[in-house]
Amino acid sequence: MINEPNLQVRVKRIPEGIPAPDDLEIVEGTVPRPGPGELLAKTIYLVVDPYVRSRLSGRHFDRQPQPGDLMLGRTVSQVVDSRIDGIDAGDFVCIESGMQQYAVVDASDVIPIDPTAAPMTTALGILGMPGLTAWSGLCVLDPIKPGETLLVSAASGAVGSMAGQIAKLKGARAIGLAGSDEKCAWARNAGFDACINYKNPDWPSVLAEHCPDGVDVYFDNAGGDVLNIIVRDHLAMNARILICGLIAQYNLKDAPPGPNLGPIVSKRAQIKGLVVYDFEDRREDFLREALPWFAAGRLHYKEELHDGIESAPQVFSRLMSGQNFGKTIIRVSDDPTLNR
Amino acid sequence: MINEPNLQVRVKRIPEGIPAPDDLEIVEGTVPRPGPGELLAKTIYLVVDPYVRSRLSGRHFDRQPQPGDLMLGRTVSQVVDSRIDGIDAGDFVCIESGMQQYAVVDASDVIPIDPTAAPMTTALGILGMPGLTAWSGLCVLDPIKPGETLLVSAASGAVGSMAGQIAKLKGARAIGLAGSDEKCAWARNAGFDACINYKNPDWPSVLAEHCPDGVDVYFDNAGGDVLNIIVRDHLAMNARILICGLIAQYNLKDAPPGPNLGPIVSKRAQIKGLVVYDFEDRREDFLREALPWFAAGRLHYKEELHDGIESAPQVFSRLMSGQNFGKTIIRVSDDPTLNR
Repeated sequence: MINEPNLQVRVKRIPEGIPAPDDLEIVEGTVPRPGPGELLAKTIYLVVDPYVRSRLSGRHFDRQPQPGDLMLGRTVSQVVDSRIDGIDAGDFVCIESGMQQYAVVDASDVIPIDPTAAPMTTALGILGMPGLTAWSGLCVLDPIKPGETLLVSAASGAVGSMAGQIAKLKGARAIGLAGSDEKCAWARNAGFDACINYKNPDWPSVLAEHCPDGVDVYFDNAGGDVLNIIVRDHLAMNARILICGLIAQYNLKDAPPGPNLGPIVSKRAQIKGLVVYDFEDRREDFLREALPWFAAGRLHYKEELHDGIESAPQVFSRLMSGQNFGKTIIRVSDDPTLNR
Repeated sequence: MINEPNLQVRVKRIPEGIPAPDDLEIVEGTVPRPGPGELLAKTIYLVVDPYVRSRLSGRHFDRQPQPGDLMLGRTVSQVVDSRIDGIDAGDFVCIESGMQQYAVVDASDVIPIDPTAAPMTTALGILGMPGLTAWSGLCVLDPIKPGETLLVSAASGAVGSMAGQIAKLKGARAIGLAGSDEKCAWARNAGFDACINYKNPDWPSVLAEHCPDGVDVYFDNAGGDVLNIIVRDHLAMNARILICGLIAQYNLKDAPPGPNLGPIVSKRAQIKGLVVYDFEDRREDFLREALPWFAAGRLHYKEELHDGIESAPQVFSRLMSGQNFGKTIIRVSDDPTLNR
């Protein structure tokens, strides 16, 4: 048994609008013990994800957390004590542990990490769930074809940047939308053919210049007005829209209206919902394709690292106000795979 | 040369809201002469279609008619003079002739009619473009499977009634939405498992009773609030929505907002635009399947017949205010295939 406190981030109240730091609170818990078929792990990296905001609104299809509940969060953790066959103390794993320093999880949710393949934080980003999301959309749900034009929102994010880079690796054009000139410059540097700052009111005409015939695939992480304008004015014939996230809407109390669907008819377009959990059984196929890309230096990614679990309330608030740049990760304890 | 006047219905002004009869005018034209590769035909039946309203708004993907232009309209006509190989004077054809007593059209737009197969008006309804529309959606674009639940709006209309009946013939359940108790009773009589009057404010809960697990396929002819509510609350997992028409929106000046797409993600649903013109090359396949159904008495259809081309402005206004019941057809001249 570990005689340390187990700092946890808990929901204090359900946020209204952009979450404030004091909608969450830091609570000192105890370190739990694993039962049969479970493991105890110590958190190294905790990712702070926008989708958690939609869970807090009760708008996500999973259960809505209540005040007092542990905040959701995926982590890269090191196993302290394992009662799962094939997993040993010292191993590194990616788990849904919630925002805390120590967690017990059962075998069903454990993804082993090979720390020699790539920096371990990538297991929370381009080589983890976000990467699998982009790959599932563009390689399984609706495969992108060479010569097509992909548009992706939140282009400097983990999902968005992988979507654009996968499109390029598959011979398509990649156009991004992002919320600052700095993010756009990063995306272009990562290989996007263009990236447009959607906070510039002129963005639709810039997009039209880059895509005079419209976009073939819109990989949408944003929703909101941007989605509605793209459906109205920027679809190519037979366009496909993959709805992956609706970040622009997560802070809103009521579900806002969506696009008028008239152009879906005239453009013979399709809209599909993309949920990464449906593609969990394809994770190995994804890594078989993505790890060689990574090893060849063909995958760019951007992270924003913060220190200490106590920073989580501020970091979450900052993320949901759109101030983050790159995958938002909290270093909860030292990464033993780094020589520092 | 035919020395008769050729009464025509022309656009007087672009309607705002529900078209008024005097947005159109009756003009006396002359009977044109066919050139090489053309035919002259005399109109027997003229169908008055809601989609024309969207053309008048400029919201349809085809060209917007201007004041002075002939109103659009498909007809069953009899050939008076043919300069097309294989078509002779006396033949019956379905053509896009516009709203007039005589028309010249070229070969590309002529669909021959066998007057012995079914009453000729069906070539404008369940065995014509509307029937092909329903069949294309449910048998080609997104085939309905036995045991699935279809929901279709405008269920007593030509497209909607065929959609429901095709679903039944394919072993699926068919639930309709229609705008009056009389229309609902007709649809049930035509074999729908249920039909719900969407003007009853209670309709969503009645629908939920009939479809506790949601609808698998929503064949939408209506758009508007009904569509938005169905997307929000009534989709089954992996539901498909075929957007065929947006009648509820045709009278509106500006394109209204559409459904929030959050449930498209959580339900892994798909939205597809359905345009019947894309399936023109499947017309023979459609008739090969539908004519035996018709011959076996398995296809119900409802028509509303009016007399005289002069009635077109009133009939169009009536149609677009939702007062019609059944396919709205104007008898412009006597049908020589009827023994009366």
